[in-house]
Amino acid sequence: MTDETLARVARATHEHLERFFEKMRTEPISAMFDSRAQSVVYDQVEEMTLRGGKRFRAALLIEAAALFDEEAPGRACVLDAAAALELLQTYFLIHDDIMDEDETRRGGPSAHVALARSCGDANMGRGLAILAGDCAAALHQIILSRLEVPDSVQRRVGRIFADMHMDVILGQVHDLLENTDPMEIACHKTASYTTVGPLSAGAVLGGAGDEAVEALARAGRPLGIAFQLRDDLLGTFGDEAQTGKPVGTDIRLGKHTFVIRTALAQADAKQRAYLEATLGDAGAGPERLERAQRIIEQTGARGACEQRIDEMASQFAEVIRRERGAPGAKEFMLHVAHLLTERDR
Amino acid sequence: MTDETLARVARATHEHLERFFEKMRTEPISAMFDSRAQSVVYDQVEEMTLRGGKRFRAALLIEAAALFDEEAPGRACVLDAAAALELLQTYFLIHDDIMDEDETRRGGPSAHVALARSCGDANMGRGLAILAGDCAAALHQIILSRLEVPDSVQRRVGRIFADMHMDVILGQVHDLLENTDPMEIACHKTASYTTVGPLSAGAVLGGAGDEAVEALARAGRPLGIAFQLRDDLLGTFGDEAQTGKPVGTDIRLGKHTFVIRTALAQADAKQRAYLEATLGDAGAGPERLERAQRIIEQTGARGACEQRIDEMASQFAEVIRRERGAPGAKEFMLHVAHLLTERDR
Repeated sequence: MTDETLARVARATHEHLERFFEKMRTEPISAMFDSRAQSVVYDQVEEMTLRGGKRFRAALLIEAAALFDEEAPGRACVLDAAAALELLQTYFLIHDDIMDEDETRRGGPSAHVALARSCGDANMGRGLAILAGDCAAALHQIILSRLEVPDSVQRRVGRIFADMHMDVILGQVHDLLENTDPMEIACHKTASYTTVGPLSAGAVLGGAGDEAVEALARAGRPLGIAFQLRDDLLGTFGDEAQTGKPVGTDIRLGKHTFVIRTALAQADAKQRAYLEATLGDAGAGPERLERAQRIIEQTGARGACEQRIDEMASQFAEVIRRERGAPGAKEFMLHVAHLLTERDR
Repeated sequence: MTDETLARVARATHEHLERFFEKMRTEPISAMFDSRAQSVVYDQVEEMTLRGGKRFRAALLIEAAALFDEEAPGRACVLDAAAALELLQTYFLIHDDIMDEDETRRGGPSAHVALARSCGDANMGRGLAILAGDCAAALHQIILSRLEVPDSVQRRVGRIFADMHMDVILGQVHDLLENTDPMEIACHKTASYTTVGPLSAGAVLGGAGDEAVEALARAGRPLGIAFQLRDDLLGTFGDEAQTGKPVGTDIRLGKHTFVIRTALAQADAKQRAYLEATLGDAGAGPERLERAQRIIEQTGARGACEQRIDEMASQFAEVIRRERGAPGAKEFMLHVAHLLTERDR
């Protein structure tokens, strides 16, 4: 039932995005769009956005709206807001991939790789990918500025999106530069646009009052952290067949995630020495990685992380259960939370 | 008098930006800002924005507002909107400089150059500069979403900014890729965010009705084109001491600007052969460049371009004279138009 709901919401978002791109071709909003159809940059934005992803964020936004007032005028445009969210995501992914020099994304070439191929020049491809990201950012702003809702609602949604934008960029800066607790940063950054922002924007569109929006935003925070902790566990213990990343990726990269930091803190001298020697060793073989994984388990770090995920997810579930919303919407919301925190890929 | 006014408006914009950056340090809008003070990326956005520029766009926005209703609630926040405009500009400049591999900007190092120096790595510097541009974009959105004006006014201003954003990015794509008339493209792109957008946003904040906003936007178009044509003339005939660029830059780069296209179209066979051989010749010496300049003059292209500038500027002036606004504001607006189209640098 709820898996069908997620599939339905994801499909609805996808189809809405298709209609949006189609509409931009037939009813251009700018004189510049006239010859846009030939542009590989714009096509890349469309392709990357439609290539997909799980649309968890869109689902959270859409179903958060369903928790509240059925008559709210914002309910009619949740798909527009979800489309704006997906374009914001496209923008982040394209720029991230340039910075991290990642070659694949969503099961295909990343934007700078695809654009470099189509113009036959790596530098030019990178420049065009910067523009492709900027183009996705502009499109998300275009959608937001035209949401067919009362101006006061539009303003609130616009603020939430502006804050997400800022949080993610600053989080990214810290990721790259600062010596702060990386977990702390990732939580801020991830929670902001994975859970807090989508839930708040959905609630506003669903006609929730300030207090309810605030409660949902607060509940979204632990959910986002749980999402990140699950991501870290998958990066350490995940199965390549499911995650698509080599076993022990985070160990090889020497990422100081929450689970790895906890393991280091709780390890005895011998265990710590082994872990420290393995972390960041890009050439570590399967045996070495397995032994590191075993040590992380033995220190109790994996268990502590699982427990933290449970606690965080429960905090979220409690808030959702307290809301009056339709049972279907509540059930689905809890299911998405479950998927976010218990997924295996 | 009017030069003093421009200096005053530019100073007010600058001081407002200083206050904005200061406020973001002391009253952060995001938890991520806590440790932001140490970030070289954020500092780079601040530095590049405050390093200046002529603030023509801000002046157009501010004085367009002054043409209309003195009691309009939007009048109180024209400086906020001008600050958002300057941050949008910072974002475009930073990303443009990465793509064009330009090393200097506003009399100092471009962002990717400065960031590469501070982290000692060119690749990392470029990645951080992508983020610095994104950060400026996020800040402009933050300011817009918080404009202290009625929601309906905020929405109209937000739409104008979203459109500018889109126009400039698409214009940039075409600049890099398409085989369209480069003049046409540059006009779209330049007019959109140099004149049309700033004038429209200012008019909305000044309480202008839809019709007046529309009239001002229409008038802004030829003004923007005149601005671009002047830019092209400076690129062809400009004096290095004043423009800061080597004599005949556009000739050496082989840019097919309006004036150069016109010259090619009106040249006789011998003149055309000489021009074609010189265009794009990066090593052309002063004599060769001077002869090319003379040919462009002889074909009448320079005169035709000057005439076009006059016509376009007059179209703008006519609309301004028709507005009822305070004489001081009208006089100043005409002066800025004069500066935009008759400048020598």
